[in-house]
Amino acid sequence: MKHLLGIRELSAEQITHLLDTAESFRDISKREIKKVPALRGRTVINLFFEASTRTRTSFEIAAKRLSADAVNISVSTSSVSKGETLLDTARNLQAMSPDCIVIRHSSAGAPYHLTRVCDAAIVNAGDGSHEHPTQALLDALTIREHKGGIEGLKVAIIGDILHSRVARSNVYLLSKLGATVSVAGPGTLVPREFAELIEQGVRVEQRIEDAVSDADVVMVLRIQRERQTDAFFPSMREYAVHYGLHADHLNLAAPDAIVMHPGPMNRGIEVSSEIADGGRSLILDQVTNGVAVRMAVLYLLAGSDAAEPSTHADLADETDESRAAGGVRGRTRHQTRGTRN
Amino acid sequence: MKHLLGIRELSAEQITHLLDTAESFRDISKREIKKVPALRGRTVINLFFEASTRTRTSFEIAAKRLSADAVNISVSTSSVSKGETLLDTARNLQAMSPDCIVIRHSSAGAPYHLTRVCDAAIVNAGDGSHEHPTQALLDALTIREHKGGIEGLKVAIIGDILHSRVARSNVYLLSKLGATVSVAGPGTLVPREFAELIEQGVRVEQRIEDAVSDADVVMVLRIQRERQTDAFFPSMREYAVHYGLHADHLNLAAPDAIVMHPGPMNRGIEVSSEIADGGRSLILDQVTNGVAVRMAVLYLLAGSDAAEPSTHADLADETDESRAAGGVRGRTRHQTRGTRN
Amino acid sequence: MKHLLGIRELSAEQITHLLDTAESFRDISKREIKKVPALRGRTVINLFFEASTRTRTSFEIAAKRLSADAVNISVSTSSVSKGETLLDTARNLQAMSPDCIVIRHSSAGAPYHLTRVCDAAIVNAGDGSHEHPTQALLDALTIREHKGGIEGLKVAIIGDILHSRVARSNVYLLSKLGATVSVAGPGTLVPREFAELIEQGVRVEQRIEDAVSDADVVMVLRIQRERQTDAFFPSMREYAVHYGLHADHLNLAAPDAIVMHPGPMNRGIEVSSEIADGGRSLILDQVTNGVAVRMAVLYLLAGSDAAEPSTHADLADETDESRAAGGVRGRTRHQTRGTRN
Repeated sequence: MKHLLGIRELSAEQITHLLDTAESFRDISKREIKKVPALRGRTVINLFFEASTRTRTSFEIAAKRLSADAVNISVSTSSVSKGETLLDTARNLQAMSPDCIVIRHSSAGAPYHLTRVCDAAIVNAGDGSHEHPTQALLDALTIREHKGGIEGLKVAIIGDILHSRVARSNVYLLSKLGATVSVAGPGTLVPREFAELIEQGVRVEQRIEDAVSDADVVMVLRIQRERQTDAFFPSMREYAVHYGLHADHLNLAAPDAIVMHPGPMNRGIEVSSEIADGGRSLILDQVTNGVAVRMAVLYLLAGSDAAEPSTHADLADETDESRAAGGVRGRTRHQTRGTRN
Repeated sequence: MKHLLGIRELSAEQITHLLDTAESFRDISKREIKKVPALRGRTVINLFFEASTRTRTSFEIAAKRLSADAVNISVSTSSVSKGETLLDTARNLQAMSPDCIVIRHSSAGAPYHLTRVCDAAIVNAGDGSHEHPTQALLDALTIREHKGGIEGLKVAIIGDILHSRVARSNVYLLSKLGATVSVAGPGTLVPREFAELIEQGVRVEQRIEDAVSDADVVMVLRIQRERQTDAFFPSMREYAVHYGLHADHLNLAAPDAIVMHPGPMNRGIEVSSEIADGGRSLILDQVTNGVAVRMAVLYLLAGSDAAEPSTHADLADETDESRAAGGVRGRTRHQTRGTRN
Repeated sequence: MKHLLGIRELSAEQITHLLDTAESFRDISKREIKKVPALRGRTVINLFFEASTRTRTSFEIAAKRLSADAVNISVSTSSVSKGETLLDTARNLQAMSPDCIVIRHSSAGAPYHLTRVCDAAIVNAGDGSHEHPTQALLDALTIREHKGGIEGLKVAIIGDILHSRVARSNVYLLSKLGATVSVAGPGTLVPREFAELIEQGVRVEQRIEDAVSDADVVMVLRIQRERQTDAFFPSMREYAVHYGLHADHLNLAAPDAIVMHPGPMNRGIEVSSEIADGGRSLILDQVTNGVAVRMAVLYLLAGSDAAEPSTHADLADETDESRAAGGVRGRTRHQTRGTRN
C-alpha cells in the first residue's frame, strides 16, 4: 500500500492492519509527552482546497505527534484560477521532496491524479462526493472498540447518502468487514435505485424507522446546509422532523446500539441534542480515534518499513522511561533503517 | 490555577508568581538557541475567532520556544455559521488531547465556556470587551522591570475604557498589586458612573490632563478605527486633538514617567510619534515581555508540576553548555514526571 | 552579508559562496531523515504581504529541514489598513527576537526598510517589481548544475521584463557571473530604451527569435494574468501567438539549450506544454533547488559563524549514522558558538 486513495481499493486484511496499527498509536495521545520520533525528518504537506478546520487539525496533530514536519497549504479557488493546473501544483510540491501529501479537494479523483506525478505517499482527506477513507477508518476503529468487531453487525446510515463521501467510504469498509448496512434519507438524497450501494449489498429503506430497526450502530450524516438545502428538501425544519434522529428512533435499535456522527454537527437538525450528548453517542470518541488513525496512516505510508511489521508496536509501547533513555538509540534505529530503503 | 481566564479571579500572589516565572523565561529569547525542552510533546492549540497577527504570533513563538507542538486554527465568522456551536468545537478539539487551548473570541466569557467541556488548560487571549489577561501581565512585567514594583505607583489609562479588555484587565491587576489608577477619555467611552471601575478604586477624570498629572505610568489605548468611530466621537481628527497623547501631557506626569501602548498603534491619533518613539516609550519592551509572559503561562498551565516550584527556574537558568550536555537528562526528568501525573 | 535584499548588492564571490553552500545542502532533501540541527532554536518568520503558496512553502520547508522554528504570518492589505505602519509591524516582530524575517511585499524596497529597524537578518522573498534574489540564485544553481558554470553562457529571457522582479534579479546575477543576456517581449513590456538593462550589458531584442538564437538557456517569465492583461497587450491569445515559447523557437537555440520558468506556469500561454514537459525543461529542478538555496540563505544569515566556513559542509555531509551518534555533540558545538557571538 503506497497511497490511501479510498477504501474501495483496500482488502479486508489491509483495513484490519490499519486499524491494528491505529490501536497501537492510540495511547500516545494519552501520555504527557505525546510524541514519538517515528517520522522525525519526514515532511507531511496538508494540501487543502476546501476549508476544513477539523480534518486538517487532526492530520496536523497526527503528523506532529510522530515528529514529522507538517506544512499546511490552504488553496482557495481564487488562487487556483491564477492558471496553474492541479497536476502542476502537485509536481511542484513533489519537487520539494515531501514524504506524504494529504489532499482535500472538491473534485472526486483529485488524489488519484496526484499519484500520477508524485513519488510522495498520497492520502485522500476527502475528494468531492467520492471517498473520505480516514473517516471510515476512524469510524471502524470506534465501532471495533465498543463492539469488539465489525463482522455481523447491522449498521444504519441516515441522511444525504447521495453526496456523502463519508457514507460511501463507510459502505465499502463495513461491507468488506462483514457488516450489513441499511440506509435511509429523503428520496432525493437516497435514490431507490442506487447501483453503487446495491452492489455492495446495502438495503435502501424509505423510512428512518426501517433502517434503524435492530441496528447495532446508527450513523447520522451531516446536512451540509451551506450547499444544498433548497434543491433536495423543502426546509431544515422539514428535514429535522422527518429525518432527524430522535430518542424514539433509538428505541427501535438494538438495546446497546451506539450513535455516530462525522461532525461538524447541526444540533436539532440531523440529530437531537438528547442523543448527541447521551450515553450512546460516540461522537467524541470518533474524533479521538481520528488522530490515532491518521497517525497510523502517516506512519505506514511515510515512515514504516514493510519488512518490519513489529516496529510500530515497539514505538507505541515504548514506555516514557525507555524512550527517555533511548532517545539517541531510537534515532539511530530509524536512521539505520533509512540507509536500507 | 488550572486556567487563565482573567485577572479578576487571580490573587496578588498568583499574579506575582506568574510575573516571577515570566522574568525567569525572559532570557531564553536573548540566547542564540532560543529553546528549552519544557513542553516537549505537549500540544498547544491557538484558536482565534478574531484576526490577530500579533497576539497569535506571540503565543506561537512562546509555545515553540518551550518545544511544544503549536497548532493554529483561525475561524472566521462565516465558518462558525456552518452550524457547529462553540462548545461543540471545543469538545472536538478536546477530543484530540491538547494540553492547552489559547482562545480569542469576540464574545465575553467564551474562554470560560470552554472550561466547562475541556480538560485542557484554557488561556484567554482576549474575549470581547471583557479581559485580556496576558496583556495586563506583560504590562505589569514591563512596569516592574522599569519601576522596581507596582505598589504605590500612579497609573493613567487614556482612551476607550468602555470597550477595552486591555483596560479592564489592567485595572484589576494594578489595583490588586497596590497601584492607583486614573482613567480619561471621551465621555461616551469613559462613563462618569462606571460601577465596575469605581469599585476598583479607579478615579474617572474628564480631562486627559487630570489623569496624567503626576502619573508614573501612562497607558494609551488603541482606538479601534475599524469598529466604532462614528458612534462615539465625531472624527479621528477630533479624537487626536482632544484625547491623543502629546508631549505637553507628559510634562504634567512624573519626571520619570513611562509610556505604554498595547498595539497596534495609530500614530498621530491616540499617540504622537514623538512620544511613541521617544525615550520614555516602552512599547517594544511590552512586546518582548509578551513572549516571556506567554511562555510562563503556557509553562505553568500546560507543563509544570505544582509540587516542583523550582523547576522552571532550573530550566530557564540552565546555561547553554549544561543544556547541551544534559539534553537527554532534561528529557528524562520530564518523562519521569509524566508517569507521576 | 547580514541581509539578502537583492542580487544587485552582491559580489560575484558572495553569489558563488551562496551557490556552493546551497549545493552542499541539496542532498539533505534526498535523505529519508531530511533534517539537520543547524538552526535548532532559531526563529524564522515568514512575513507575506502577498499570497504565495510556493515561495512561502519553500522557505518554510527550508527552515524546518534546518530545525528552525518557522512562524508564518500572512498579512492581507485589509489588516494593514487597520493603521499600523510597515515599520511598526517590523519593530514589533523584532521585539519577539526572531533570527530571520523573510518578507514578500508588493512595494519595492520594503525589505530594505525593515533592515533600518530590525536586528534580525532580512531576506527579500520578492518586493514589488524590484528583486527576487532567491529565485535568481535557484535559477543560477540549476544552470550551474546542468552547464557546469555560468560564465560565457548566452541566456535569453522572454516575457514581461518591465514588471518582473525575477528578470531583474536574474539580469544582475547572470551579468555578474559573466553570462550574456538577451531579452524579448512585447514592446510595452520590454522598452527599447531600458537604461537599467542596458547598463548591465543586456541586449534588448524585438523578436523572440532573435533573443533565443544560439541561447544556452531560455528563461520564460510568467504572464501575471491577474494583474495586467489589458493595459499591455490585446489578449492572452495574442500573447501566446507572438511571445509564447514553442518548439520552433528552441530549434534556433543551442542544441543542448535548457528551458526554465519561475512558476506558476500558464501552460499554452507563455510556454507550450510540449516544451514545459519536454526533456530540456528544468522547471521542476528549479523548485528542488529552491529549497536548497533557501536553506543556504537561512543558514548563512541566521545560523552560520562567518569564521567557520567549513561548518555547513560538515553538517550537510554528516551521514545518518554519525548524526545519530553526534546529536548531542552537534548541539554542543552550536551552543558553544552561541556564547561566543
